[in-house]
Amino acid sequence: MRRIAILGSTGSIGRSTLSVAASYPERFQIVSLAAGRNLEAAFEQAKRWGPRVISMAEERDAESLEKRLKQAGLGEIAVVCGAAGTVRVATHAEVDFVVSAIVGVAGLKATYEAVRAGKIVGLANKECLVAAGELITAEARRQDKPLLPIDSEHNAVHQCLRGGEMEEVHRIWLTASGGPFLHTPRAEFASITVQQALNHPTWKMGRRISIDSATLMNKGFEVIEACRLFHMPPEKIQVLVHPQSTIHSMVEFVDGSILAQFSVTDMRLPILYALTYPERIQSDMRFPVGDLRHLDFCPPDLEKFPCLRLAYEAAEAGGARTVALNAADEIAVAAFLEGKVRFDAIPRIVEQVLAATSSRKLDSIERVLEADVEARQCALQCVRSGDRVRNPAASIA
Amino acid sequence: MRRIAILGSTGSIGRSTLSVAASYPERFQIVSLAAGRNLEAAFEQAKRWGPRVISMAEERDAESLEKRLKQAGLGEIAVVCGAAGTVRVATHAEVDFVVSAIVGVAGLKATYEAVRAGKIVGLANKECLVAAGELITAEARRQDKPLLPIDSEHNAVHQCLRGGEMEEVHRIWLTASGGPFLHTPRAEFASITVQQALNHPTWKMGRRISIDSATLMNKGFEVIEACRLFHMPPEKIQVLVHPQSTIHSMVEFVDGSILAQFSVTDMRLPILYALTYPERIQSDMRFPVGDLRHLDFCPPDLEKFPCLRLAYEAAEAGGARTVALNAADEIAVAAFLEGKVRFDAIPRIVEQVLAATSSRKLDSIERVLEADVEARQCALQCVRSGDRVRNPAASIA
Repeated sequence: MRRIAILGSTGSIGRSTLSVAASYPERFQIVSLAAGRNLEAAFEQAKRWGPRVISMAEERDAESLEKRLKQAGLGEIAVVCGAAGTVRVATHAEVDFVVSAIVGVAGLKATYEAVRAGKIVGLANKECLVAAGELITAEARRQDKPLLPIDSEHNAVHQCLRGGEMEEVHRIWLTASGGPFLHTPRAEFASITVQQALNHPTWKMGRRISIDSATLMNKGFEVIEACRLFHMPPEKIQVLVHPQSTIHSMVEFVDGSILAQFSVTDMRLPILYALTYPERIQSDMRFPVGDLRHLDFCPPDLEKFPCLRLAYEAAEAGGARTVALNAADEIAVAAFLEGKVRFDAIPRIVEQVLAATSSRKLDSIERVLEADVEARQCALQCVRSGDRVRNPAASIA
Repeated sequence: MRRIAILGSTGSIGRSTLSVAASYPERFQIVSLAAGRNLEAAFEQAKRWGPRVISMAEERDAESLEKRLKQAGLGEIAVVCGAAGTVRVATHAEVDFVVSAIVGVAGLKATYEAVRAGKIVGLANKECLVAAGELITAEARRQDKPLLPIDSEHNAVHQCLRGGEMEEVHRIWLTASGGPFLHTPRAEFASITVQQALNHPTWKMGRRISIDSATLMNKGFEVIEACRLFHMPPEKIQVLVHPQSTIHSMVEFVDGSILAQFSVTDMRLPILYALTYPERIQSDMRFPVGDLRHLDFCPPDLEKFPCLRLAYEAAEAGGARTVALNAADEIAVAAFLEGKVRFDAIPRIVEQVLAATSSRKLDSIERVLEADVEARQCALQCVRSGDRVRNPAASIA
């Protein structure tokens, strides 16, 4: 019986995790939940799953939830709130598996504490590895507990890696859909609209990740995540564009064999994989292999998608630079979505912030969060400096 | 240090094995060789590798070889011959790994004895699993020694299976190039010439295997091999046509994940894999992953390729039926190559022989060889009965 904590239970991954748990009631028990600001959803989850403890982001939501649970005769469920509440959910004594799915740096502290408390962690939060990957993976090694990736690419890599030992890996190949501008000439990038950029060909996703997919920054983040998770230098992580996104990723071994993983594109599959690892259990998520017809591939164009190049550079430098990459990108994407900067300003803003950031190592989550704030301020300045973003020399002047 | 015996050292797999051994002299020692009828090649191999013992198919070749070796100052190499000689090569006390690569039923006895002697066996001989798979795999289980497949499909499956436990496998997918008649209308099958049938689109191979690829019988044999090697019923072994033959095979797990293996099409790769298993060692056989462009797939057409259906039926029945499948096919293919029967008579002859064969279990290699002789006689009768193979006079006329 896996005893589970979910950080981000009302989000997409959180709900998928509960859906997996519901399918295998004999295998999974929900011990604790960290919800966000959706009081109604949190109440329903608490009622359905009867966790020991549930946390809300805001104190006043926690108070309302506590009242409603008491009225419903569920007063034994402890209600907590804020960052400390999330940590309590993540480190609850009865928990052995923590699903880390809070979006943004808000999930960092609790995820790190979960690892420190010896929990097995399933990672669906990007920042844990992009911004704090060195810290979190080092701690997981100290605890001798696996970090299990819950996203299709790294989960695919994790599966392929079972075909050999880590020192037998030559390279990792992350596949990328290529985003909506795979075939758009570079000259047209300056005039890309928000609407065009949000129109991802194969996935329906949140706004920021849609833009990150359009710039290939999302793939850049995944390169960094792979470096940290699998303890490999950036040059051993390669990207291959694969518009159908059927093959989720591949591992090339030193002998010349390559293993690739594919499956239906349903997040419940990597969640199930992580929750049951090292076992695999029966699911109804069948890919119709016999219906396979065509798979296409091409190399990524780093000229057209400088965000991918910037991510490689940040991965190489590590420390505060990967924190800055994520923070600057978040600010730049928000500015693009608000119509404040052009699409092609996103990599320029990120590049400026990276140039202004030292590659110092960060030895605690607090340092990571400080570097994050610093990079955001720098990025906001770049945004405010408007057109001067165009010409780096002029931008800070 | 792996101490190796090669059964079929002067054939294609044998020579590739020696080429692998030459690349890693610190890892591999050649202890014994069973050559065929190529005296010159056998002499060169004995001179180059200094085995303890070398066997020739024919006694007079053995005598000549012995004389030449003595003249060359290599009198310490024991020269033996015939079936008994092959067994001696396969069971030599200093050997721990036997590469079984003698074509046809001639390799059966020695391979079985190698397994009985507790050797690890790398299988490149089809008949070992098609005709005697039940016996050989049962003995390998008793010995608790692995049988390692040395052909691209089953080797790929073996690699993919590392991604889970055997009881977690939902299905195995063998890929098939589809042969030269993938797009030929069924109506034209009767008039297919030997020249057309030998013209395989992606592989240069021997004559029989070329025809077996054209009828998909070769894939049918592989279905049976997979059943025996991986202890799975035929319905769990599926075939998917993949004209580029890039992906060598796939394994679908119960959770819905599929692992696929690909690599350059160089037999040295599965040989190296088997010889070093469970390790993987560095090779220069790099597949240019970044150059991947298109992969195509389609389901096999069992109407057009009845040999594949017949193989499934034989796999299900087992025992003497799989022996008969192989024996009848060999006779039918030879008759086609000699212009005695039409291309579409091959499955008809095989089907007639299968219908005349009981599905009795065979409890020794001797029984297998008897069943083989019986099926060949039956197949020869079918060939001689000529047109009665359905459409009489026309085909020979």
